[in-house]
Amino acid sequence: MTQALLLRDIRPMGGPATDMLIRGGIIAAIGPGLEAPGAVVEEGRGALAIPGLVEAHTHLDKSLLGMGWRPHQAGPALADKIETERRLKREWGIDPARQSARQVVQSLSHGTTQIRTHVDIDDAVGLAGMEGVLATRAAYAESMDIEIIAFPQSGLMIRPGVAAMLEEAMRLGADGVGGLDPCAIDRDPKGHLDIVFDLAERFGKPVDIHLHEPGLLGAFSTELIAERTRALGLRGRVTISHAFCLGDADTAMVERLLDQIAELDIAIMTTGSASRPVPPIARLRARGIRVCSGSDGIRDTWGPYGNADMLERAMLLGLRNNFRRDDEVEMALDVCTRGGAAVMGFEGYGLSVGCNADLVLVPGESLAEAVVSHPPRQLVLKRGRPVARDGAALLPTP
Amino acid sequence: MTQALLLRDIRPMGGPATDMLIRGGIIAAIGPGLEAPGAVVEEGRGALAIPGLVEAHTHLDKSLLGMGWRPHQAGPALADKIETERRLKREWGIDPARQSARQVVQSLSHGTTQIRTHVDIDDAVGLAGMEGVLATRAAYAESMDIEIIAFPQSGLMIRPGVAAMLEEAMRLGADGVGGLDPCAIDRDPKGHLDIVFDLAERFGKPVDIHLHEPGLLGAFSTELIAERTRALGLRGRVTISHAFCLGDADTAMVERLLDQIAELDIAIMTTGSASRPVPPIARLRARGIRVCSGSDGIRDTWGPYGNADMLERAMLLGLRNNFRRDDEVEMALDVCTRGGAAVMGFEGYGLSVGCNADLVLVPGESLAEAVVSHPPRQLVLKRGRPVARDGAALLPTP
Repeated sequence: MTQALLLRDIRPMGGPATDMLIRGGIIAAIGPGLEAPGAVVEEGRGALAIPGLVEAHTHLDKSLLGMGWRPHQAGPALADKIETERRLKREWGIDPARQSARQVVQSLSHGTTQIRTHVDIDDAVGLAGMEGVLATRAAYAESMDIEIIAFPQSGLMIRPGVAAMLEEAMRLGADGVGGLDPCAIDRDPKGHLDIVFDLAERFGKPVDIHLHEPGLLGAFSTELIAERTRALGLRGRVTISHAFCLGDADTAMVERLLDQIAELDIAIMTTGSASRPVPPIARLRARGIRVCSGSDGIRDTWGPYGNADMLERAMLLGLRNNFRRDDEVEMALDVCTRGGAAVMGFEGYGLSVGCNADLVLVPGESLAEAVVSHPPRQLVLKRGRPVARDGAALLPTP
Repeated sequence: MTQALLLRDIRPMGGPATDMLIRGGIIAAIGPGLEAPGAVVEEGRGALAIPGLVEAHTHLDKSLLGMGWRPHQAGPALADKIETERRLKREWGIDPARQSARQVVQSLSHGTTQIRTHVDIDDAVGLAGMEGVLATRAAYAESMDIEIIAFPQSGLMIRPGVAAMLEEAMRLGADGVGGLDPCAIDRDPKGHLDIVFDLAERFGKPVDIHLHEPGLLGAFSTELIAERTRALGLRGRVTISHAFCLGDADTAMVERLLDQIAELDIAIMTTGSASRPVPPIARLRARGIRVCSGSDGIRDTWGPYGNADMLERAMLLGLRNNFRRDDEVEMALDVCTRGGAAVMGFEGYGLSVGCNADLVLVPGESLAEAVVSHPPRQLVLKRGRPVARDGAALLPTP
């Protein structure tokens, strides 16, 4: 049990300055002038306090962090990127355990306290990614909550044997079943989705499907996903990641999709991609749809961008969605905090008494300023224990 | 005359490590193992050297930097933003001299050494913005090159008296004539553009027109601009800023516009807006069209974003244009360096012997890494004189 911790002079969610007492990793009391004999005292100096940032979509198993600069080699199509990555994983020795640990430490430095990661399961690496990320999850269990989605990155129907590997990944401890462009990549939407949803049903786990397919093709796949969500009673247990089709200019088509998504409580993950159509966050939230966000791949063979900073991600969501008012910018932050937590399966998230003390102190006059400036985090706590300070993780990077 | 400066162990444009000697503010020699008795020696420690970053489109006169966080108040339309700003300039006391100086210092901290700023000329503030920015230009003459575009932000035809003020601004020392959405805002494209181009012709100055008009409306205004550029022999002297119409999905229409833009050597400024259609940088550059970039408004009444970092801007251009290969990311950097310099009127830009020693040392393995990481600048020189170090300007902020 960690020692009690008293945070003095902090501003939860940008409100008035107050104190917060943390005992046993849990927020025990909030109020001005708290006394706690024997507690370690941390001066917040008026910093904003927000709950831990949530990275709801990334790929821990294949970042190139710490491996030196490697020029991008893949062609423009999704298929090029998949093939290039399969080759380079082997040639460059991209070790899933080491690389996932590096990214976890970088995420901690920026105040992320929960991660949902998709882990490649395919006929090139088999279950090596799974085993590596499971090792990292165990090694960092006290510092980061990690949810693992077993992800058929190279396809499921077009790669014999991958379905059986996915099932094995579920037995090894995956928290959910992933899928990928059932039409555009796997060429057999019924076959693909039937396998994914069958695994979800048999293992009692949620589903999270990468859907890059634009326009009517993506709408078709979304309908197939909705049909299975309804038929199997998986309301509230399915996420569609990217969902570029929801950014289509045919707003009548989008509204029909949103009807089904809202009714079935399907969550939507958006990175706020600047170069693709994206789901309009404000419209989704106005309909009560859960929206979360993530960095996606961070400096990997798919592209050179990304730094695991979910506060910067909130800014990118704001820029992409043309959010200018404070309440809009705060909505982007909410997507990167509570929105993500509402998609994952961890209990006790928030800044109220009784919640886990997973929180971030960040300098700033207001929440909106913290988003647009995303300065180095003053302090990051995981279950009440400092894991990063002044922008640097307190854990070693492998 | 500043003392000679020897930069040791730097990598110009990411090439092999070498030394650079600077005398009288000019690059005097480049080569390994240079000796220069009496020169101040600066250890580059293997940093990349790039020419000074170029901010080719901003609004120095109206940033809110240093004025505390102020929630955004304007409605969604361009007209709302214009009206709100006219009111708040007075209510909040947005002092153009003070605010432009603050932004100049922030730009220096990030390695910008040239700025083109649009300055509001209207019936609310008259020439106060002009006078304030002129004062800043004089005060920082040794540290920053500033080009001023007299800009009818509130409209020209719909605001009696503004045309005469624009002319007065040209007499006061503006370096170019600005314009704004001749159809959508000013409701009289012929009247608007005739006044702008008449001033350009009479004062012998270039033109830079904000064109937010999308699709066919923007195409129409672009054609009117091209017609006047041709008729007045202003080839190479006109910039269209934003040019959202060039990001239209009707690529055949866009190609016809690019034919005229290329023929008349009209430059295009893009911020890489994530929420609007934008000019496709690679297609423009492949046709030889000069492309530059800028921050646009930085934390002003139009919106909360922006930090004056043109290396981060290069990343945003890369994200918006889906640049992934190193050569593509380097193209984004080129837009933010040489591209901007090719639009402005200052001589001696570059990293060759004989060029002005306006340059930036930045840590990084490669130019592409410097763009995606945009770490604090190690050293910024203006005419060979250090103006920023380790991310902080060496000049005081007012």
